[in-house]
Amino acid sequence: MVKVVAKSKVKTNELEKYKDLVKFLIDETRKEEGCVSYDLFQDINNPSILTFIEEWKDEEALKRHMESKHFVKYVPMLGEFREGDGEVNIYKQIL
Amino acid sequence: MVKVVAKSKVKTNELEKYKDLVKFLIDETRKEEGCVSYDLFQDINNPSILTFIEEWKDEEALKRHMESKHFVKYVPMLGEFREGDGEVNIYKQIL
Repeated sequence: MVKVVAKSKVKTNELEKYKDLVKFLIDETRKEEGCVSYDLFQDINNPSILTFIEEWKDEEALKRHMESKHFVKYVPMLGEFREGDGEVNIYKQIL
Repeated sequence: MVKVVAKSKVKTNELEKYKDLVKFLIDETRKEEGCVSYDLFQDINNPSILTFIEEWKDEEALKRHMESKHFVKYVPMLGEFREGDGEVNIYKQIL
Protein backbone atom coordinates (compact mmCIF):
# COMPACT_ATOMS: atom_id res chain seq x y z
CA MET A 1 0.00 0.00 0.00
CA VAL A 2 1.20 3.53 -0.75
CA LYS A 3 -0.36 6.82 0.30
CA VAL A 4 -0.04 10.04 -1.67
CA VAL A 5 -0.59 13.51 -0.22
CA ALA A 6 -0.71 16.14 -2.97
CA LYS A 7 -1.19 19.64 -1.59
CA SER A 8 -1.95 22.74 -3.66
CA LYS A 9 -2.64 26.37 -2.90
CA VAL A 10 -5.33 27.34 -5.38
CA LYS A 11 -5.89 30.94 -6.52
CA THR A 12 -8.87 32.16 -4.51
CA ASN A 13 -10.84 33.35 -7.54
CA GLU A 14 -10.29 30.01 -9.31
CA LEU A 15 -11.48 27.67 -6.55
CA GLU A 16 -14.79 26.77 -8.19
CA LYS A 17 -13.20 26.15 -11.59
CA TYR A 18 -10.56 24.00 -9.93
CA LYS A 19 -13.17 21.88 -8.16
CA ASP A 20 -15.23 21.46 -11.35
CA LEU A 21 -12.21 20.16 -13.20
CA VAL A 22 -11.17 17.91 -10.32
CA LYS A 23 -14.52 16.09 -10.52
CA PHE A 24 -13.61 14.61 -13.90
CA LEU A 25 -10.21 13.50 -12.64
CA ILE A 26 -11.72 11.92 -9.52
CA ASP A 27 -14.46 10.07 -11.43
CA GLU A 28 -11.96 8.48 -13.79
CA THR A 29 -9.33 7.78 -11.16
CA ARG A 30 -11.67 5.96 -8.78
CA LYS A 31 -12.40 3.45 -11.58
CA GLU A 32 -8.73 2.51 -11.86
CA GLU A 33 -7.51 -0.91 -10.79
CA GLY A 34 -5.42 -0.54 -7.66
CA CYS A 35 -7.02 2.74 -6.54
CA VAL A 36 -8.17 2.18 -2.95
CA SER A 37 -9.23 5.78 -2.30
CA TYR A 38 -8.79 9.13 -4.01
CA ASP A 39 -10.38 12.05 -2.17
CA LEU A 40 -10.09 15.83 -2.17
CA PHE A 41 -9.83 17.77 1.09
CA GLN A 42 -9.94 21.45 1.98
CA ASP A 43 -8.04 23.00 4.89
CA ILE A 44 -10.57 24.14 7.48
CA ASN A 45 -8.42 27.18 8.33
CA ASN A 46 -7.41 28.16 4.80
CA PRO A 47 -9.96 27.33 2.07
CA SER A 48 -7.41 27.90 -0.71
CA ILE A 49 -5.43 24.83 0.41
CA LEU A 50 -6.80 21.81 -1.45
CA THR A 51 -5.18 18.43 -0.96
CA PHE A 52 -5.63 15.02 -2.48
CA ILE A 53 -5.17 12.14 -0.07
CA GLU A 54 -4.84 8.96 -2.08
CA GLU A 55 -4.35 5.30 -1.30
CA TRP A 56 -2.99 2.90 -3.91
CA LYS A 57 -2.59 -0.85 -3.78
CA ASP A 58 1.11 -0.58 -4.66
CA GLU A 59 3.63 1.61 -6.48
CA GLU A 60 2.81 -0.10 -9.78
CA ALA A 61 -0.82 1.06 -9.55
CA LEU A 62 0.30 4.60 -8.79
CA LYS A 63 2.70 4.52 -11.74
CA ARG A 64 -0.12 3.39 -14.07
CA HIS A 65 -2.29 6.23 -12.71
CA MET A 66 0.39 8.82 -13.49
CA GLU A 67 0.54 7.52 -17.07
CA SER A 68 -3.25 7.38 -17.50
CA LYS A 69 -5.04 9.50 -20.12
CA HIS A 70 -7.05 11.42 -17.50
CA PHE A 71 -3.97 12.18 -15.36
CA VAL A 72 -1.98 13.44 -18.36
CA LYS A 73 -4.96 15.53 -19.49
CA TYR A 74 -6.22 17.08 -16.22
CA VAL A 75 -3.21 17.43 -13.93
CA PRO A 76 -1.42 20.06 -16.08
CA MET A 77 -4.74 21.94 -16.45
CA LEU A 78 -5.17 22.01 -12.66
CA GLY A 79 -1.64 23.38 -12.34
CA GLU A 80 -2.77 26.60 -14.00
CA PHE A 81 -5.08 27.39 -11.08
CA ARG A 82 -2.38 26.88 -8.50
CA GLU A 83 -0.30 29.47 -6.70
CA GLY A 84 3.32 28.31 -6.84
CA ASP A 85 4.33 24.68 -7.01
CA GLY A 86 2.29 21.93 -5.47
CA GLU A 87 3.78 19.62 -2.86
CA VAL A 88 3.57 15.88 -3.48
CA ASN A 89 4.74 13.15 -1.12
CA ILE A 90 4.51 9.42 -1.63
CA TYR A 91 4.45 7.47 1.60
CA LYS A 92 4.69 3.97 3.05
CA GLN A 93 3.23 3.29 6.48
CA ILE A 94 5.85 2.54 9.13
CA LEU A 95 3.83 2.64 12.37
CA MET B 1 -14.96 13.53 10.04
CA VAL B 2 -11.70 15.51 9.97
CA LYS B 3 -8.32 14.49 8.60
CA VAL B 4 -5.02 15.76 9.90
CA VAL B 5 -1.76 15.64 7.97
CA ALA B 6 1.20 16.52 10.19
CA LYS B 7 4.49 16.49 8.32
CA SER B 8 7.95 16.74 9.89
CA LYS B 9 11.49 16.65 8.62
CA VAL B 10 13.37 14.67 11.24
CA LYS B 11 17.13 15.03 11.80
CA THR B 12 18.69 12.02 10.04
CA ASN B 13 20.70 10.90 13.08
CA GLU B 14 17.60 11.08 15.31
CA LEU B 15 15.22 8.99 13.20
CA GLU B 16 15.30 5.90 15.41
CA LYS B 17 14.84 7.91 18.62
CA TYR B 18 11.94 9.76 17.01
CA LYS B 19 10.22 6.52 16.02
CA ASP B 20 10.72 5.00 19.49
CA LEU B 21 9.05 8.00 21.09
CA VAL B 22 6.23 8.06 18.53
CA LYS B 23 5.26 4.50 19.51
CA PHE B 24 4.12 5.68 22.95
CA LEU B 25 2.12 8.54 21.44
CA ILE B 26 0.47 6.22 18.88
CA ASP B 27 -0.43 3.55 21.45
CA GLU B 28 -2.19 6.06 23.69
CA THR B 29 -3.82 8.01 20.87
CA ARG B 30 -5.39 4.97 19.20
CA LYS B 31 -7.25 4.27 22.45
CA GLU B 32 -8.95 7.70 22.38
CA GLU B 33 -12.66 8.00 21.75
CA GLY B 34 -13.20 9.56 18.34
CA CYS B 35 -9.84 8.44 16.93
CA VAL B 36 -10.64 6.61 13.68
CA SER B 37 -7.02 6.16 12.57
CA TYR B 38 -3.63 7.54 13.57
CA ASP B 39 -0.73 6.26 11.51
CA LEU B 40 2.86 7.26 10.81
CA PHE B 41 4.21 7.33 7.25
CA GLN B 42 7.66 7.78 5.75
CA ASP B 43 8.32 9.41 2.39
CA ILE B 44 9.62 6.74 0.02
CA ASN B 45 11.96 9.26 -1.65
CA ASN B 46 13.19 11.05 1.48
CA PRO B 47 13.33 8.90 4.64
CA SER B 48 13.71 11.95 6.89
CA ILE B 49 10.15 13.08 6.06
CA LEU B 50 7.80 11.47 8.60
CA THR B 51 4.10 12.31 8.48
CA PHE B 52 1.14 11.46 10.61
CA ILE B 53 -2.08 10.93 8.71
CA GLU B 54 -4.95 10.99 11.17
CA GLU B 55 -8.69 10.60 10.98
CA TRP B 56 -10.95 11.92 13.76
CA LYS B 57 -14.67 11.53 14.22
CA ASP B 58 -15.11 15.31 14.51
CA GLU B 59 -13.32 18.50 15.54
CA GLU B 60 -14.31 17.95 19.17
CA ALA B 61 -12.42 14.64 19.28
CA LEU B 62 -9.36 16.28 17.74
CA LYS B 63 -9.53 19.09 20.30
CA ARG B 64 -9.68 16.55 23.15
CA HIS B 65 -6.66 14.78 21.65
CA MET B 66 -4.63 18.00 21.59
CA GLU B 67 -5.41 18.52 25.26
CA SER B 68 -4.66 14.92 26.27
CA LYS B 69 -1.83 14.07 28.67
CA HIS B 70 0.09 12.03 26.09
CA PHE B 71 -0.17 14.78 23.43
CA VAL B 72 1.04 17.47 25.84
CA LYS B 73 3.87 15.20 27.00
CA TYR B 74 5.19 13.71 23.73
CA VAL B 75 4.54 16.28 21.01
CA PRO B 76 6.99 18.90 22.40
CA MET B 77 9.60 16.12 22.90
CA LEU B 78 9.21 15.05 19.27
CA GLY B 79 9.71 18.67 18.20
CA GLU B 80 13.30 18.52 19.40
CA PHE B 81 14.17 15.91 16.77
CA ARG B 82 12.72 17.96 13.94
CA GLU B 83 14.50 20.18 11.44
CA GLY B 84 12.60 23.46 11.28
CA ASP B 85 8.90 23.76 11.95
CA GLY B 86 6.49 21.01 11.20
CA GLU B 87 3.56 21.50 8.85
CA VAL B 88 0.07 20.68 10.14
CA ASN B 89 -3.15 20.87 8.15
CA ILE B 90 -6.64 20.01 9.34
CA TYR B 91 -8.97 19.01 6.54
CA LYS B 92 -12.58 18.31 5.71
CA GLN B 93 -13.39 16.16 2.69
CA ILE B 94 -15.07 18.09 -0.14
CA LEU B 95 -14.99 15.60 -3.03
